[in-house]
Amino acid sequence: MHYPEPISKLIDSFMKLPGIGPKTAQRLAFYVLNMKEEDVVSFSKSLIEVKRELLYCSVCGHITDVDPCYICSDKTRDRSTLCVVQDTKDVIAMEKMREYRGLYHVLHGAISPMDGVGPEDINVPSLLERLKDDEIKEVILATNPNIEGETTAMYIQRLINPIGIKTTRPAQGLSIGGDLEYADEVTLSKAIAHRTEM
Amino acid sequence: MHYPEPISKLIDSFMKLPGIGPKTAQRLAFYVLNMKEEDVVSFSKSLIEVKRELLYCSVCGHITDVDPCYICSDKTRDRSTLCVVQDTKDVIAMEKMREYRGLYHVLHGAISPMDGVGPEDINVPSLLERLKDDEIKEVILATNPNIEGETTAMYIQRLINPIGIKTTRPAQGLSIGGDLEYADEVTLSKAIAHRTEM
Repeated sequence: MHYPEPISKLIDSFMKLPGIGPKTAQRLAFYVLNMKEEDVVSFSKSLIEVKRELLYCSVCGHITDVDPCYICSDKTRDRSTLCVVQDTKDVIAMEKMREYRGLYHVLHGAISPMDGVGPEDINVPSLLERLKDDEIKEVILATNPNIEGETTAMYIQRLINPIGIKTTRPAQGLSIGGDLEYADEVTLSKAIAHRTEM
Repeated sequence: MHYPEPISKLIDSFMKLPGIGPKTAQRLAFYVLNMKEEDVVSFSKSLIEVKRELLYCSVCGHITDVDPCYICSDKTRDRSTLCVVQDTKDVIAMEKMREYRGLYHVLHGAISPMDGVGPEDINVPSLLERLKDDEIKEVILATNPNIEGETTAMYIQRLINPIGIKTTRPAQGLSIGGDLEYADEVTLSKAIAHRTEM
């Protein structure tokens, strides 16, 4: 035994986090040793709170401490547009933009036959249930622009098509602030194919 | 407000740790959300325990949950050798080696006039106190091989010299498994100067 019991337990806990190996875990644990007591207490408390007080919104699937979440229960939002995303972090990214005023639907994953994830393993059935609501006029399929995301978007689009709701997908093209020469070929070819008139 | 309250508090706590920025903190907080409840509870508990149950050994200054620490109270250890290190992590590194069987003295820092750290700001007085003990025959000055560490070692060596206790310093030279071509000039020149006969 090299460490006193409490510190070796803390190192083990830090090592359970993604991207944190033994050396970093040790460094963090020793750092905690010298942190202000109130900071450590608040850290310890919020860990438990995140685990115990947060749940997924029963309407959209976003994480929340009240059900339905603050977005679903916000009466000022545009209830005719629904943005479908893969992850709660995508909702946060969208909200940071401060432009989209519609509602969300979090799939919690994407269709990936390679990993054995089918449409029924992600929140697709609850999405179809929501679409029975007459209010929704447009579904933005904002899944990730990769194989799994595209597959998922395509699959959902085919399900929605017969219902007659408009489906859209965010534009694909060059990143703002990026360099043309560093854009990958697929992105560049999409950007050229979908060029817009000035 | 983009995040529910508990998660934004947890993100703030993670961001207080060294080397963890907003993006990593967010990733870790969301990871906690999906961790097993028992793991989160044990994480939360050990944070508090590390802060409340650990103290510095009153003899050697190593971190411990009992005073004196398990090294100082181990009767099988060689009480004639004292290894002086800068930090508790150095004790752990030494203990991992499983070869040194003597005692330790943790300075909790090094002399650094640039940062206003003098000999009385680190555990030097308590070291001199311990050396009055007749048992100690050798002091290994294992401070870091950099300016501050060398200065500290030299300072302590001058204090100990009149008492007539042997002082040593770990050998400096090439790292095992390293490449000669990548060794820095100072290390290489020390390695050549202190070359040993085969």
